Amino acid sequence: MGRRAVIGILGGMGPAATVDLFDRIVRATPAETDQDHLRILIDNNPAVPDRTAAILEGGPDPSPLLQAGVQELARRGAELLAIPCNTAHHYLPEVQAVCPVPILDMIVETAKHICTTHGDGCTVGILATTGTVGTGLYQRALEAENLAWMLPSDAEQEALMDAIYGPQGIKAGAAADGPRAAIQGIGRQMAARGAEAFVLGCTEIPLVIGPGDLVKPSVASNQVLADVTVRRALAPR
Amino acid sequence: MGRRAVIGILGGMGPAATVDLFDRIVRATPAETDQDHLRILIDNNPAVPDRTAAILEGGPDPSPLLQAGVQELARRGAELLAIPCNTAHHYLPEVQAVCPVPILDMIVETAKHICTTHGDGCTVGILATTGTVGTGLYQRALEAENLAWMLPSDAEQEALMDAIYGPQGIKAGAAADGPRAAIQGIGRQMAARGAEAFVLGCTEIPLVIGPGDLVKPSVASNQVLADVTVRRALAPR
Repeated sequence: MGRRAVIGILGGMGPAATVDLFDRIVRATPAETDQDHLRILIDNNPAVPDRTAAILEGGPDPSPLLQAGVQELARRGAELLAIPCNTAHHYLPEVQAVCPVPILDMIVETAKHICTTHGDGCTVGILATTGTVGTGLYQRALEAENLAWMLPSDAEQEALMDAIYGPQGIKAGAAADGPRAAIQGIGRQMAARGAEAFVLGCTEIPLVIGPGDLVKPSVASNQVLADVTVRRALAPR
Repeated sequence: MGRRAVIGILGGMGPAATVDLFDRIVRATPAETDQDHLRILIDNNPAVPDRTAAILEGGPDPSPLLQAGVQELARRGAELLAIPCNTAHHYLPEVQAVCPVPILDMIVETAKHICTTHGDGCTVGILATTGTVGTGLYQRALEAENLAWMLPSDAEQEALMDAIYGPQGIKAGAAADGPRAAIQGIGRQMAARGAEAFVLGCTEIPLVIGPGDLVKPSVASNQVLADVTVRRALAPR
């Protein structure tokens, strides 16, 4: 086995999704003792301005903190970076441009994974923040893999945002039952309109929605990111 | 609200316990949005030599990597450090000696917490690695709080180590049921001999044992560490 890459995680967007990616990476690592595990440097920086607010409402630009964050992780020895926030991927080109080590693209990797597991031509329902949907990131990545896509209706998208951001939502740390039921309802309606699979394109959603919780198969972007991160970190270089 | 302290976690001992402390800190933080959360820098460094092997069998000394790890976290801006490994606390004096910022003492804090919640004179069963037990860290910390303590029998201690380190154990990422049942059995036997409460003095144990899982109340050292970390990080300075 060659030397393994040191992983860097720029997190805090949100913190629970960062815990979740860290957890998924540790679980995805083949290991019998502590010493078999990967070195992981994490900067959980919740001060990064809200990405959705920046994209939709002209809120403070998160790019400077994202750029400084990845540069600092690279300086400290990270050789492969992951950012567990789909919406932040809107800024990936300008963040990668100033970063000396590769940043994995969670959205492209997730689209590739869906293509491999669910095949060409499948219609994929996109469950993501309004900010991510507005960037078109998943739409373009799915089209590049010859996959059709479907968005929630405006009312469904609003209900999804409430499940993520509302006072009883995931980011507020509320009980999972309410957000789960809301997202399951959206999934049922989209499946009735033809969605054959779902991408959980916001890293908060898999905190309450497991693989079997929707009426059609779902792919969690943070699980794909965790698997790809471990595979690349262990790959001979 | 004053400026909050940046938290540093020196982890990897083991990685799952580090995920768990990070998770407990995020959950213990009063927050409604991402931006309410605390900045947390984590160095998950599983290359730190096994602490129990070093103490009991003269294995490689973990001190140099522990010292370098806390110094690096402080250099990067951490103002308050936590190390989610009870056994590593054997090295705390020499690690704190070279570190410019305070490192919380999980063992002393846990003993104080048990004294507050369960009162003077209670007999506390110590569930910890053989390395931690051998250092006498919990025994001394409990005595300092006027608490009596009880250790598992040799056979029980061996079964406990197997639940943590064995091929079907917690560090190997095995299903929780086996280790949980083993530790519950040890708890029943110790309660029959007079244990009135338990300290879960190894950060891996609470991964499979919840607050109500033993016949007597138990206090998880990593929950205490998470609570104290958040309280200190938010305290006016």
